[in-house]
Parts: sequence; C-alpha cells; structure tokens
Amino acid sequence: MKELSKLMDYRPDIKVIDATLRDGGLVNEFRFTDEFVKALYNANLRSGVDYMEFGYKADKEMFDESKFGPCKFCDDEYIRSIVGENNTDLKIGVMADVGRCNYKEDIHDRSESPVDLIRVATYIHQIPTAVDMIEDAKKKGYEVSCNIMAISTAQESDISVALDILGKSPVDVFYIVDSFGSLYPEQIARIAALYGEIADKYGKKLGMHAHDNQKLAFANTIEAVGDGVDWLDATYAGMGRGAGNCAMELLLGFLKNPKYNVYPVIQFIEKYIPEVRAAGAVWGYDFQYLMTGLLNQHPRTAIEFTKQGRKDYAEFYKEIISQE
Amino acid sequence: MKELSKLMDYRPDIKVIDATLRDGGLVNEFRFTDEFVKALYNANLRSGVDYMEFGYKADKEMFDESKFGPCKFCDDEYIRSIVGENNTDLKIGVMADVGRCNYKEDIHDRSESPVDLIRVATYIHQIPTAVDMIEDAKKKGYEVSCNIMAISTAQESDISVALDILGKSPVDVFYIVDSFGSLYPEQIARIAALYGEIADKYGKKLGMHAHDNQKLAFANTIEAVGDGVDWLDATYAGMGRGAGNCAMELLLGFLKNPKYNVYPVIQFIEKYIPEVRAAGAVWGYDFQYLMTGLLNQHPRTAIEFTKQGRKDYAEFYKEIISQE
Repeated sequence: MKELSKLMDYRPDIKVIDATLRDGGLVNEFRFTDEFVKALYNANLRSGVDYMEFGYKADKEMFDESKFGPCKFCDDEYIRSIVGENNTDLKIGVMADVGRCNYKEDIHDRSESPVDLIRVATYIHQIPTAVDMIEDAKKKGYEVSCNIMAISTAQESDISVALDILGKSPVDVFYIVDSFGSLYPEQIARIAALYGEIADKYGKKLGMHAHDNQKLAFANTIEAVGDGVDWLDATYAGMGRGAGNCAMELLLGFLKNPKYNVYPVIQFIEKYIPEVRAAGAVWGYDFQYLMTGLLNQHPRTAIEFTKQGRKDYAEFYKEIISQE
Repeated sequence: MKELSKLMDYRPDIKVIDATLRDGGLVNEFRFTDEFVKALYNANLRSGVDYMEFGYKADKEMFDESKFGPCKFCDDEYIRSIVGENNTDLKIGVMADVGRCNYKEDIHDRSESPVDLIRVATYIHQIPTAVDMIEDAKKKGYEVSCNIMAISTAQESDISVALDILGKSPVDVFYIVDSFGSLYPEQIARIAALYGEIADKYGKKLGMHAHDNQKLAFANTIEAVGDGVDWLDATYAGMGRGAGNCAMELLLGFLKNPKYNVYPVIQFIEKYIPEVRAAGAVWGYDFQYLMTGLLNQHPRTAIEFTKQGRKDYAEFYKEIISQE
C-alpha cells in the first residue's frame, strides 16, 4: 500500500503534458481551427499544465499536406502563429516518430524554434534510429523524451535491453506507453519498477502515456504517480485515438499541487469539445476497444469497426478472438 | 506491489454479483420488460455470474406500485415468473434498504422464496436497524450481506465501530460501497485493510460496490480483488445510477476463473442495452459526475443536471463548489 502522503500531499517534480492536439489529432486528421488551438493554449496556461504537445513533425515527403491540418507537421511558423514567442511557463512539445520524420532537416535549432521538447516515439525494434534522433535533438538544444510503444507485446528482457541503450543516450525521460490499453494497474506498478531501476541508474525521469480501452487510462496514470512516475500525459475530454487517453479533467482534479486548476479545463471542454465531435471526430471508451484491450491487440480493428458504424459487438468479438 | 499470481491465477472464493436490475433500475424506474429480465437471467447463467440481484424489496406503503416496474418490489411471485424454481448455480439476491423496507412482512421464509441472498443497505447512523434486518433475514434462512453507504463522508473511527457491531451480527459479508464515486484505488486499499481486519476477526467476507464518477469503478474493483475482497458487484454496460457501476464486461474480462465467460455479456449488451437507452434511460461517466465525485458530494445535483439536459458544465462546477 502506498503512503497516505502521496494522496494528500504532492510531488513538485510532477509534470503534466497536454497531448490533445497530438493524440486527439489522430481522430480528426489534425483539423483543428486556429481558434481551438489558441483557446487550448490559453486553457493550458490558466490550468497550470506544464507542456503542450502541438502534434507531429511528420515528413512531408511521406504525408500529403493537403490531407491533414497543420498539427500533423508542426512547422515552427505555425506554432509561432499561435503562441508568438511563448514567454510563459508553458513549454511546447512535438512528437517525432521513428521512420516518419525527416528530423535532420525538419527539426531546427531550439534557438530558432518555439519548441522546447522533442518526444521521440519508437517501437522496440527501432531503438538505434531513436537514439540517433535523440542525439540530434539534444545537439540542437532540446529537452528530449522517448516513448517505447506497444510494450504490452514485448518481452521484459527486451525492454530492459532497450532501456539500457536509451539510458546511455542523452534522453531525459523514458515513457511507459500502454498503446493497446491492455495493462492493469498491477502491471503498471511492475513495469514502473523495471523502468525505474534503469532510470535511476542513468539519472532519467519516467513518464506515463495511457489509453482508455479498459477504462483504466486515469487509474493507470495515478497508479504510475504512486510508483515514482513524474511526467503524465493527458488530453482534454480524453480526446485521442480509439478509446482515448487519460482525461485532463480527471488528472488535474486528482493532483494536489496548487499550481493546477481544473476549472479552465472544464470551461474549454464545455465550449470547444462539442464542435470537434459535431465535425465527426469519434473517440472514447466503447465495447470494441475493451475487446482489443482485453486481448492485447492493436486497436486498428476496433477503429475500423467504429468507422463503419458497426454495432454487432458479439460478431466483432468472434472475429478478433479467432485472429492469430 | 501485489503478487503476480493474483493477475495470472484466480481465487476460487471470488463471487460476481450482477446488480443491473437494482442499480440500473434507478435510472429507468425499474421498467424492465420480462423479456429483458429473462434474457439477463440467461446471460448470467451462461457467463458464470454467481448472484443476480433482482432489485429492491421496497415498502408498498411508501412507494406507489403504479410508478415503478416490478423490480422495485421483487415479490417472490414476480421473481418466480422469471426464474421458475431456479434449479441452477445462479443465486438470487434482493436489496432491502433500512427505513424503506417492511422486512418483517415482505421478506418471507427462504423455504417459500426463490431468493437466496438479502442485501441490507444502511447509512452509518442506521446500524441498529440494519442489525435487526440482518437477524430477521438470517432467522428466515437467507445469506445476508450489508452495505454501509456513503463511507467517503464518514470517519474511519465511526466505520470501525459500525463494523464491530455488524461483526457481532450474523451477517455474512461486509460491503465497501463508494456511493459518491469519490474514492481512489489507494484509498480502497486502505479501506479494504480496515474492513479486512474486522472481517477476519469475526469470520466475515468482504464485498465491493463501486461507482464510475471518476472512471474508477472497474479500477477500484480490481484494486479490491487484490486486497482480499471476494464479492464483486458489476452491472451490464455499467448500467446504474448517475455515472453507473463497474461494468460486467470489464470485470469478467479481467477475472481469470475459467467459469466466467464474457461472451454472453457482450451478446446481451448488443441486443438489449440499446432498447433501455432508447426508452430514455441515461447513465454513464460524464463531466458533471466527475465533479461531484471529485468534491465527494452526493451525485443528486449531477443527476438533476443530466435530467435537465444541461451542458453548462462550468456553471455547474461553480454551483457545486460553492455549496456547503
């Protein structure tokens, strides 16, 4: 059982990262209006959020700019059009995917950019490229975190090796990522212990990025807080791929640091979330996501089921349980 | 950190209680069709659920029979019309509220009734009447559990005294009830330790009944399983008052006992849940329930907000935060 003080008191090391534009962008092709993005920036400022992730640095050779909103590419000019010089305590992050980002050219020196944090996302078999991206971003002056995705299908021994390689890199934060929303709080505790051992050895911080397939995104995030994880991802109204993420309104309600304030989050949700839903974005817990989470599968079949407007849950369960 | 075996293996002592008709009945005035109730009974049989709660034994002097469906009153004849003599492994439960049940007259001897379990629900200031109801039900031959409601606003020392009185009664199970959906898993662990100490002393079992105001009903239930709690309440699609309950489909997916099977639950949900929603029943996680949960308040204001179709969440937050 954890210490009472962890609920009543707070750790000043906690950082809250708003991932709404990035993970949420996956359900609307990043088609956020400038008004939405500016209002989100202001809500983050007022609610004491530490980092705001603007989206991906996607390679324009691979992705057609006409098919996505600007948060898919996160040009410095676009971010500057929202935040100006961002002379605030709110830092700006972007995600760079291994294999989908022309990082050497598209990520400029931090001195020329409004961005503060590069979040490198990698699968476990891509670690050497991730390290190259981390080194590149560090050399350019950024804070750098690294998400190893889909760890619920990886062996613990492989994760250890990957973390050991990352430990020797200049990355600042290891992220625990439950891509399939398949992990239970007990498993988070065990994974945080594994990550924490290697993080301590190399002086790194830990982060948590959760999905809500089994309605555990918030529960797993607060489990992680109790296990020494400091960097916490959340999105407004849980907006994110498939079942969505840990909801910002739940997380800020829970955290006791007086710098956080849930009220601006509620105001933003009331005013801006209905419009993205009305425009067709669909996310949130539903039975099909529970099923892929339960079976530790990628949610792509459940996302397709949702897109097709299917409601034959029992048939879907039979389809995915017979997949190998 | 809990034992790995608790996730991979299972405790045969676990009992799953389907509370759909009872807690779910609170959102549709118990107006379930016989077809719905029969299908639910069959789904519970097929999915290995241990107990099916049919509803309340409400006092007909206090509640007008014309204003509610039969599960509000749970006459033996009504239950028998669904389950016959119920020669199955699925046991039948009903809830009897202190002060709202004419238990001496309306609860008949078990030998004459299809009911197996009386679930006495009490507030902490009503314990002596609860004990009288427990003794009455035991004398009539029933298994008996006791829910102490709204413990998140009670002092631990008062809870200890209440449990000590109940410990001396012939009740079989103490239920931990998070009526306001305000408790976090760490708190459940602490409460389970407190309940467990007194339960061990008197040879009682522990149960968990959770609400989803902060999307923690399932998380708190599986936390409780890891803390030695054996009786677990769940409802199909989480149907229940306000934000609803721990979802049966999540719970049976989690439990590893091979006698449980989530597939009949999914089939039932697909076929029967849309009709109760179409008939106007509203339940499930929403921002107004998060807010009352966060502030450890009774959800009645959030239920009223929902009924009125209000969406002005920020105004609602201001209203409830200024209440004393």
